[in-house]
Amino acid sequence: MKFNVASTLSYEVSEPAVFILNVEAAALRNQKILSENLELSPPVALDRHVLDGGTRLVRAVVEPGTFTVAYGATVALEMHDADPASVRETPVAELPLEVVPFLNPSRYCQSDKLARFAHREFGELAPGHQRVTAICNWIYEHVDYLSGSSDAETSASDTMVQRAGVCRDFAHLGISFCRALAIPARFASCYAWQLDPPDFHAVFECYLDGSWYLFDPTRKAALQGLVRIGVGRDAADAAFCTIHGGAQMTGMEVAISAAEEVGEGEPTVRAVGIA
Amino acid sequence: MKFNVASTLSYEVSEPAVFILNVEAAALRNQKILSENLELSPPVALDRHVLDGGTRLVRAVVEPGTFTVAYGATVALEMHDADPASVRETPVAELPLEVVPFLNPSRYCQSDKLARFAHREFGELAPGHQRVTAICNWIYEHVDYLSGSSDAETSASDTMVQRAGVCRDFAHLGISFCRALAIPARFASCYAWQLDPPDFHAVFECYLDGSWYLFDPTRKAALQGLVRIGVGRDAADAAFCTIHGGAQMTGMEVAISAAEEVGEGEPTVRAVGIA
Amino acid sequence: MKFNVASTLSYEVSEPAVFILNVEAAALRNQKILSENLELSPPVALDRHVLDGGTRLVRAVVEPGTFTVAYGATVALEMHDADPASVRETPVAELPLEVVPFLNPSRYCQSDKLARFAHREFGELAPGHQRVTAICNWIYEHVDYLSGSSDAETSASDTMVQRAGVCRDFAHLGISFCRALAIPARFASCYAWQLDPPDFHAVFECYLDGSWYLFDPTRKAALQGLVRIGVGRDAADAAFCTIHGGAQMTGMEVAISAAEEVGEGEPTVRAVGIA
Amino acid sequence: MKFNVASTLSYEVSEPAVFILNVEAAALRNQKILSENLELSPPVALDRHVLDGGTRLVRAVVEPGTFTVAYGATVALEMHDADPASVRETPVAELPLEVVPFLNPSRYCQSDKLARFAHREFGELAPGHQRVTAICNWIYEHVDYLSGSSDAETSASDTMVQRAGVCRDFAHLGISFCRALAIPARFASCYAWQLDPPDFHAVFECYLDGSWYLFDPTRKAALQGLVRIGVGRDAADAAFCTIHGGAQMTGMEVAISAAEEVGEGEPTVRAVGIA
Repeated sequence: MKFNVASTLSYEVSEPAVFILNVEAAALRNQKILSENLELSPPVALDRHVLDGGTRLVRAVVEPGTFTVAYGATVALEMHDADPASVRETPVAELPLEVVPFLNPSRYCQSDKLARFAHREFGELAPGHQRVTAICNWIYEHVDYLSGSSDAETSASDTMVQRAGVCRDFAHLGISFCRALAIPARFASCYAWQLDPPDFHAVFECYLDGSWYLFDPTRKAALQGLVRIGVGRDAADAAFCTIHGGAQMTGMEVAISAAEEVGEGEPTVRAVGIA
Repeated sequence: MKFNVASTLSYEVSEPAVFILNVEAAALRNQKILSENLELSPPVALDRHVLDGGTRLVRAVVEPGTFTVAYGATVALEMHDADPASVRETPVAELPLEVVPFLNPSRYCQSDKLARFAHREFGELAPGHQRVTAICNWIYEHVDYLSGSSDAETSASDTMVQRAGVCRDFAHLGISFCRALAIPARFASCYAWQLDPPDFHAVFECYLDGSWYLFDPTRKAALQGLVRIGVGRDAADAAFCTIHGGAQMTGMEVAISAAEEVGEGEPTVRAVGIA
Repeated sequence: MKFNVASTLSYEVSEPAVFILNVEAAALRNQKILSENLELSPPVALDRHVLDGGTRLVRAVVEPGTFTVAYGATVALEMHDADPASVRETPVAELPLEVVPFLNPSRYCQSDKLARFAHREFGELAPGHQRVTAICNWIYEHVDYLSGSSDAETSASDTMVQRAGVCRDFAHLGISFCRALAIPARFASCYAWQLDPPDFHAVFECYLDGSWYLFDPTRKAALQGLVRIGVGRDAADAAFCTIHGGAQMTGMEVAISAAEEVGEGEPTVRAVGIA
Repeated sequence: MKFNVASTLSYEVSEPAVFILNVEAAALRNQKILSENLELSPPVALDRHVLDGGTRLVRAVVEPGTFTVAYGATVALEMHDADPASVRETPVAELPLEVVPFLNPSRYCQSDKLARFAHREFGELAPGHQRVTAICNWIYEHVDYLSGSSDAETSASDTMVQRAGVCRDFAHLGISFCRALAIPARFASCYAWQLDPPDFHAVFECYLDGSWYLFDPTRKAALQGLVRIGVGRDAADAAFCTIHGGAQMTGMEVAISAAEEVGEGEPTVRAVGIA
């Protein structure tokens, strides 16, 4: 599947500012960037770095005035479907050790505090992809998706109490429950096909049966149409823009469309593996 | 400086358990392991992995019964002293981008929540190594070091309210304040020369002027005698042992001694750089 | 029903200390104190006060040395049974206004934070005594009763995340959910008949249909055998002893026995009203 | 001193709603209501109750449509000035026992969590009115007054971390520190003379030397011009309007003016006692 993605971010810079941007499609084995273009206006020199997980950081030092970041790319996703019933959990004894840090709690995913709940609610379920689906179903059924109900400080344990949030909060809860059950889980920001209205989206990935699999407890986007941008411990690792200095965002546009006809299928009953 | 370090951990295993151990000296450029020995009893097959930061993980699958982990090593530290007044902060515009994730908040270091305080208290101080020393002094003067006053869930924002903690809590506060001020900071567990009584210790490191520098707001150990074990975002990344399965720790011994005569100096007025 | 209750508290006082004690049976309309005795040793002058809710405070200024508080009483409870199905909720429009403050959140009962959950989980249930029973059942089924799992700082929102606690935590959750649903609720410490092992106990009361009714989500004691001691917003209002000065508790004994043969009945299917 | 106070609250009621209003000047010994008028439009039957602390509750059951509450009063304050240096703290051994509950932690004032800080920072200061002034000064100097920086869930321990808030947050911190030091403290909402722009205000009161004294750590209003409305444990006890049912506030106006010429004085160096 090929997708065209685009985003435009506009800022009013009041004093010299360092922008650390993360809007480009991540460098992942099964996410091929066929073409892309990043245009800063006014143009400024860039520093670039790809983090170990594939997240691509761009740094720009910007002088006062209007500043616009426009990104566009065509990306081919080579995801594989699997029968969820066949995707087992990988026992800790068999996990690649580089995946083990994704069992640790993080800023927004206090898997330690939520461990008793996770074990009580999901501990007796049969291990495997379907257990993570049960976790996603629980979140969907027990948390209200409500714009404005959370903010940049809201963590999974807050959401557990308040029972409302947006996509990042849903992902943080899912990650927390999985880690508590010894399932490695990480956060992914993305361009999300069919998300309405268009916006940056957040989902999570679990390491199951030798691959990372995608999960979206909000049920708002199609799993086969997720072009990932930032992949990390949680939202702290995947901000689309961090500014050191004086600047205000004045506009944001996000778009994604299929670059070819989309095949039919049964996406909702398939496990979508990504790496 | 050369040091002999040793630790012995004893467990009673009640059901098959996976141990993920992090007791070996980290693989760091300026921390040379001259000799080392890891002995598990009963002996079991090991998996090994070195995380990107140099933390060395060992995994062992252990059957019920008594289980003992004994580690010993001779390590040469090649730290460099610098005049603190000469160690500047590296502006975000000049930071190596791989260091940028150490500006992000983490499980125990909510630098986002503590940002206003950090800016109010330390924001006007001259940037540089001496500003981080001022942060350490503040922690030392405003937080009681008190065994048993915190637990595995205690984070920097908790410590900010409760004003008591142990070495890991002191480190978490220091890391949080530094990140809030755009100084990259990371956590390090270590064998700590002169720590009394001997135990695993926790300190933090800041990226300043092109190197990582060591800081210990507890003032309990000598900076030149810190043999680092786990280096990461915070204590979540540096547990000396994580167990999946049924086991109880029954004993722990930690030791460190100078393997050669220690040179005199003025350690408390010098900045100790480590990488 | 008549009960004999007794408690003995022993302290080692290291410097002059003010004790504020709350061990005497509360002064409540339907809880008649037939006889009682409070013996302090060494004897000290007392100040007494009965708070508006009926909680009886005793203040003693104690010199260094051993200090013992021994209380004993025979108390007649005049509780009434009702058919739970007949006990309706009192609409806010009809509540006595002096009861309205028991709708407010308090230190350990953040009914504001837990409001969305309470409405999602219990909001659609038919109002009345049986809805509060459903709340108690939920707590019993979703929270582990586990000594040592909470401390004096643990609040209902903590318990919601951690899913473990003791009697006071169970009561705090129940109070929080009820207040969120506009059901006035208050905390009661008590001597609890049939509690095993004997100890001070904590339950909660709801204002329903013109009376206060008792609820114990721990299911550890018989509702008809609760001799209440402190009645208030939450545990902050019902400490059996608060000490200003230097003293350590060295012993505590609590006892309760039926002073007459206990009538048979169906206590578990009856609503027990208390005022 | 006499003041004219007024407030007008406007609501759009979408479904039958119960309003519990607390806008009338409190019934306090030294706050004489010379005349007052409460006008509901459309007119509805009222229930009234005066809580033990003097807070006056009004309940109205309102049908859908526009609903307006207009209150006006002329109030004489009979406050007494004292030399702050002469106002001692009342030892716990001498406190009227009915005041003791104002030492307990409450929803927004976790004096238990903040106790170590309070003792470290203020514990060595000489007891008395001037110690509470030192507490107010600390708050003024260490917390930013910033509209929109807190919300209805923000408590004193949150403010301790975040270092920003509005008048209620400032009061909650002051109350918490005082209670931790065994100084009874309570919250008061009020009409505040000279507050700019006019609004409901929040301050706190401490029981010192036999009387309640007023403190305003925001320094935004004149202590002699505070017409108190709700007096209680914290803001949870002093909401100007609580609605059960469907209604939205559409407007609010608050006013206060001196009803006679105001005498000159040295208010900032005087302790203002109120009861």
